[in-house]
Amino acid sequence: MPESAAPFGRLAVVGLGLIGSSIARGARRYGLAETIVAVDRDAGVRDRVRELGLADLVTDAAEMGVAEADLVILCVPVGAVGAVAAAIAPHLKPGAVLSDVGSVKGSVVAAVLPHLPDGVAFVPGHPVAGTEYSGPDAGFSTLFSNRWCILTPPEGTDAEAVARVRGFWEGLGAIVETMTPEHHDLVLAITSHVPHLIAFNIVGTAADLEEVTQSEVIKFSAGGFRDFTRIAASDPTMWRDVFLTNKDAVLEMLGRFNEDLSALARAIRWEDGEALHALFTRTRAIRRGIVAMGQETAAPDFGRRPSED
Amino acid sequence: MPESAAPFGRLAVVGLGLIGSSIARGARRYGLAETIVAVDRDAGVRDRVRELGLADLVTDAAEMGVAEADLVILCVPVGAVGAVAAAIAPHLKPGAVLSDVGSVKGSVVAAVLPHLPDGVAFVPGHPVAGTEYSGPDAGFSTLFSNRWCILTPPEGTDAEAVARVRGFWEGLGAIVETMTPEHHDLVLAITSHVPHLIAFNIVGTAADLEEVTQSEVIKFSAGGFRDFTRIAASDPTMWRDVFLTNKDAVLEMLGRFNEDLSALARAIRWEDGEALHALFTRTRAIRRGIVAMGQETAAPDFGRRPSED
Repeated sequence: MPESAAPFGRLAVVGLGLIGSSIARGARRYGLAETIVAVDRDAGVRDRVRELGLADLVTDAAEMGVAEADLVILCVPVGAVGAVAAAIAPHLKPGAVLSDVGSVKGSVVAAVLPHLPDGVAFVPGHPVAGTEYSGPDAGFSTLFSNRWCILTPPEGTDAEAVARVRGFWEGLGAIVETMTPEHHDLVLAITSHVPHLIAFNIVGTAADLEEVTQSEVIKFSAGGFRDFTRIAASDPTMWRDVFLTNKDAVLEMLGRFNEDLSALARAIRWEDGEALHALFTRTRAIRRGIVAMGQETAAPDFGRRPSED
Repeated sequence: MPESAAPFGRLAVVGLGLIGSSIARGARRYGLAETIVAVDRDAGVRDRVRELGLADLVTDAAEMGVAEADLVILCVPVGAVGAVAAAIAPHLKPGAVLSDVGSVKGSVVAAVLPHLPDGVAFVPGHPVAGTEYSGPDAGFSTLFSNRWCILTPPEGTDAEAVARVRGFWEGLGAIVETMTPEHHDLVLAITSHVPHLIAFNIVGTAADLEEVTQSEVIKFSAGGFRDFTRIAASDPTMWRDVFLTNKDAVLEMLGRFNEDLSALARAIRWEDGEALHALFTRTRAIRRGIVAMGQETAAPDFGRRPSED
């Protein structure tokens, strides 16, 4: 539980998408920084950030945007983190803390550490939260409320810097856990990356069928398919980078998934009703655990209402 | 659009689970039957049906329950439809209409037709609607509102009987479409059965990992995994029967899914970022189609709120 969030003087958010703009909104709402600087290379995004009043300063020049910052959070796709770190590193002030929000941590640590100047701590982070929407308009200040944020500080990282980043995330309402980048990448491969992969995949499979029209897929999607389309509507660039940078863990977990799926297909082919019933009973219990832990709604059907209601 | 629902005098619902109890509630609310008879072999279910006041008559004797009915709807797992049809068939009155709500239609038609007495029409149906909850308490009268209901009348079925069943479902708020049982089973294999199968599967895979604890899977489920747990929490008996009775179509569609997944794994292994990005962009569009057709909410994250909100 947060006692009092250690505020940072100047916060620079690099990349004002769903996550970055939610951090900016939350930092302002919960008083976690005195000044908020928004850095984005996209002119359209900068315009929206100005119109929405998300930051005190808005710039496309990352080097200048981060120069006086006490906390810099990189909120760009993981494939871009290395290049951005290289560009801003010489401009970070001594005592500054650098962080990020990438869904993959091993590759981010490897990409950032070589550029890190003396006197700057790098505390990689990953808030396990999001929606299927992208961009500065999609963010909201409570996105991280009661969601986990995982920190993966490399060995030897200044403990005080880790504590300050922890305090920042707790100030945003998150629950903070610390683990190694390697373990993070394994855990997220099964809880996030492979689920996204199979969601993208089945939506693609359904779209490509010849015997079943796309119109039929859409009409009868309430039978289960539509649940998958939400995460299959997530940001394409972000997810491309996730799979390319967490390749080994994703392929390993996908291998496990495939083995289990083969066994399940075999149970269907040989009409082993007992094996099917046993698995389906076991999986029901997992959801109860997620609901009990406050990570999911208990309302039927996610509590959703069709769009015309 | 419904003009005026053709009401039936006496409606018998056999099996008062999520679907059956929703039909009973809807039939009463929208005035689609004068008398509602609830038939269930489970004493606990019958007690709840009485307490909830869902029917005018409640009985465990299917033969008696259906004797005077003008419309009989079987709402039991598809694996049980044949046995129930055999038991009630001799007791159906001439002119009665028999229907069902099974998620598989080919096997249901094959199981019911041999028992069908002269003068009774069989109009198989499948409302594509549901939640992850089961039992008479889980039902609600608007479950079918703006959802498709597919009718698969065998060749030669009395057209008036089909029209009356159509009117009944339209009275419940559903949109009715007619197709062959074979096409239904193919369409639903990809829009419902395979999605359930891979959801059950990944939840099982995650639960069995040794390197990642079940507690970690639950904590970090907001990264995508939890979306799958909803349909993996669906009724085990119903789903066992679906896979056993729609085996061929499920294995065929699963084969397509697997081919596509292999190609996707290969794109990851060979770091083909363009192929990944192209697929992820394409899948985004499908969800927009589902939202536009009113089959899904446009609210971020299904509009859900965590359980403690």
